[in-house]
Amino acid sequence: MSEIKDELLEALKARDGSAFLKLAEDAHYADLASLYQDLEEDEERNFIVGTLSPESFSDVLAELPDTLREEALERYQPSQQRELLSALSDDDRVDILQDLSDSTQKEMLDLLSADEEELTRTLLNYGEHTAAGRMTTNIGRLPLETTVKEALNTLRPLQDSAETLSRIFILDEQQRPIGFIRLRDLAFASWSTPVRDIMFPVQQTILATADQEEAATMVRKYDLLALPVIDESSRLLGAITYDDAMEILEEESTEDIEKLVGIAGEQSEQTYLNTHLFIHLRRRVGWLLVLGFLAIASGYVMMRFEEVLNSAFLLALFLPMVVATGGNTGGQASTMVIRAMALGEIETSDSLRVAWKELRLGVLQGLLLAITLAVITLLVLPAFRPQLPEGLALSSFSLAVSIALCVQVVTSTLIGALLPIFARAIKLDPAVIAAPAITTIVDVTGMVIYFTTARHVLGL
Amino acid sequence: MSEIKDELLEALKARDGSAFLKLAEDAHYADLASLYQDLEEDEERNFIVGTLSPESFSDVLAELPDTLREEALERYQPSQQRELLSALSDDDRVDILQDLSDSTQKEMLDLLSADEEELTRTLLNYGEHTAAGRMTTNIGRLPLETTVKEALNTLRPLQDSAETLSRIFILDEQQRPIGFIRLRDLAFASWSTPVRDIMFPVQQTILATADQEEAATMVRKYDLLALPVIDESSRLLGAITYDDAMEILEEESTEDIEKLVGIAGEQSEQTYLNTHLFIHLRRRVGWLLVLGFLAIASGYVMMRFEEVLNSAFLLALFLPMVVATGGNTGGQASTMVIRAMALGEIETSDSLRVAWKELRLGVLQGLLLAITLAVITLLVLPAFRPQLPEGLALSSFSLAVSIALCVQVVTSTLIGALLPIFARAIKLDPAVIAAPAITTIVDVTGMVIYFTTARHVLGL
Repeated sequence: MSEIKDELLEALKARDGSAFLKLAEDAHYADLASLYQDLEEDEERNFIVGTLSPESFSDVLAELPDTLREEALERYQPSQQRELLSALSDDDRVDILQDLSDSTQKEMLDLLSADEEELTRTLLNYGEHTAAGRMTTNIGRLPLETTVKEALNTLRPLQDSAETLSRIFILDEQQRPIGFIRLRDLAFASWSTPVRDIMFPVQQTILATADQEEAATMVRKYDLLALPVIDESSRLLGAITYDDAMEILEEESTEDIEKLVGIAGEQSEQTYLNTHLFIHLRRRVGWLLVLGFLAIASGYVMMRFEEVLNSAFLLALFLPMVVATGGNTGGQASTMVIRAMALGEIETSDSLRVAWKELRLGVLQGLLLAITLAVITLLVLPAFRPQLPEGLALSSFSLAVSIALCVQVVTSTLIGALLPIFARAIKLDPAVIAAPAITTIVDVTGMVIYFTTARHVLGL
Repeated sequence: MSEIKDELLEALKARDGSAFLKLAEDAHYADLASLYQDLEEDEERNFIVGTLSPESFSDVLAELPDTLREEALERYQPSQQRELLSALSDDDRVDILQDLSDSTQKEMLDLLSADEEELTRTLLNYGEHTAAGRMTTNIGRLPLETTVKEALNTLRPLQDSAETLSRIFILDEQQRPIGFIRLRDLAFASWSTPVRDIMFPVQQTILATADQEEAATMVRKYDLLALPVIDESSRLLGAITYDDAMEILEEESTEDIEKLVGIAGEQSEQTYLNTHLFIHLRRRVGWLLVLGFLAIASGYVMMRFEEVLNSAFLLALFLPMVVATGGNTGGQASTMVIRAMALGEIETSDSLRVAWKELRLGVLQGLLLAITLAVITLLVLPAFRPQLPEGLALSSFSLAVSIALCVQVVTSTLIGALLPIFARAIKLDPAVIAAPAITTIVDVTGMVIYFTTARHVLGL
């Protein structure tokens, strides 16, 4: 925990309002939000709300996880709520209103001024996961026919409210962003220069309705400070700034990671420890049930091969190894492919190239593992005096399990690599076919491969 | 593929230098780098290198994956290499030199001017994964006793070279960053204002030797444009900018995801399809071998319980399910905990709270799954006329497998949650104890739990 948080906590525990306020002035809103979130007593949260002005609490509120915002907002009187909402930047305000219950959202909208309300309603209509739903409209805009002096005069009133003045967009008569200038270009140019002479062309824009992840990926790829968001007529609506992009990418990475182990649903914005037990349960138990009952298929295969197993029970020694290695290699292959698809490196049309690569990789891995297993069974196993049926040589046994291992590794690697591509081709989220699902599938194929190979090679 | 890339490719295939150059002027360097990377013929890459000036290629070079940089650089003559290296920002130059072979790195250092060489050597010494190894030194710095007019004059010569002028740091006499101003504060203030009157305090700094991930996390958490990097005497060395932070976070997320499925080593900066087969093999086969041979322990347990299995072979039907469900829940728990640790939400000291949460979750999940299994075994199984040994009631069998499932889920959830915390406590990377390792471990414990429960409940 950071030093300032410790000091704030001390002032809070002592209920020392003036000390707390003094510390809060120097603290970053991210630290205040983290402090608020750690508190467990209602009365302590009331102390923070009662001590900070609605205006200073507005930044803290924007930083809080979704699930804590409504209760925090409701600790204020309506007149304070109005003050707080007006102090928010438009994208934060939309983000907060989005997650409120319908009745509270309506109450809050009624508190806003007519202008604020109209803008907020428009942005709310775009939906939470779109570029427009995450953009800010507080950006610098200039008409094409402007001089540096006029530009500085136009921008001066914005200097405190604009989220970024590092990129100022130049609009044509149809309000389309055709260029941008950096504030430094204005600051160091002579006052009579027309902005069109010093502007750079706008190369990247994104449609209002595009997915937020697409917008964030563009910001990262092209190292942008602000990505202009446009409507269908190419008119400038707002911009996605670098800090929003970073937040979006972080959320998406956590979601990707969770999906890979079969944790369902949207990532909770609360921290692990603050998330309610039932929310954890709801997100985790679904896949456990589905995969658990699919795994009965493996058991069914094993029962069908009862005779094979019983005629050489030593086969049990390497059964879990062969089956599990398939799960591991299939999980690796699917994760690599899913990540490559998420980063835009692989399309459905690349499936043959992926298959060819993974086939060669599978064969190499399979041979390597099989040879190691063969050496171990031949050299190490005799020391333990394994019980093999009359007339069965250890070398045949060794050959059988090694072949099974090799076949299992090759097929599992291919299944792991191709199923996510197949899922995308039929418009499913490829992450659904992640490691746990692949493991369950190749458990079944592994059992079949193992016992079939044993039956044929050993003649059981 | 983007439109501009298609057009560039067409000009390239036609070997039309002037058309290519014209298109390249409007193209973003990220698109040019992606085009270069897609090319498979040596002669095509030579065309790009021969057509673009060394200066315009410098941005493209910085965007290329590590493994392609040396061969690209070597397509130029030494005098062009010098031009290219000088055109690079200092952090990109260090990043590129870091990954060259020792002899090429020396050659390139010799090409630099004395000043550039000294700076580059200093930065190289910090190491690739430190804050200083990723920082830029091209930032605005002003002494404390400066007026707005003097500041603008000092910064004017930097306007083209500085990576960011959005944050300008104010230094005291010991070169410590005590404040910052935004360019907008200079642009709109009266010329006689002292900068100390309009500066904001610097609240976040990072040590040169700190890990790059820590720096990137701070940039994200505090929504910074530039995080000042300081030495042990708190002197300003440079800054980590938002775009570097975004790149670091993306690399670390991919590495985290790969570690979670047992893919070892540093993430390749090349795309999936461009990475050589042997690099894929080297990163993937290690854990396959280790986990594969650990899985023999599961087989050993199964062999030891040969009698139990043979006296009621129906047990085989639910064996994979009980074992695999433990792997799934353990994988989920460990992933949640590892991600929460990576995001700084959990410390080692929280282990009791984590254990308590996962214990309750494990019990809830275990009961839910066990009850479902009991219902299925009692209602569905009879239709398949299962073979049970003389004198053994289906209800006892159902009770035994359900108890085993519940115990396996509870222990696996706890093992999955606590092993990563334990790993961190003994200074291991928690991600090493990720899903595949947990699965292998709880496969063994699952076998023991299953057969022991069956033996006791069924009296076998």
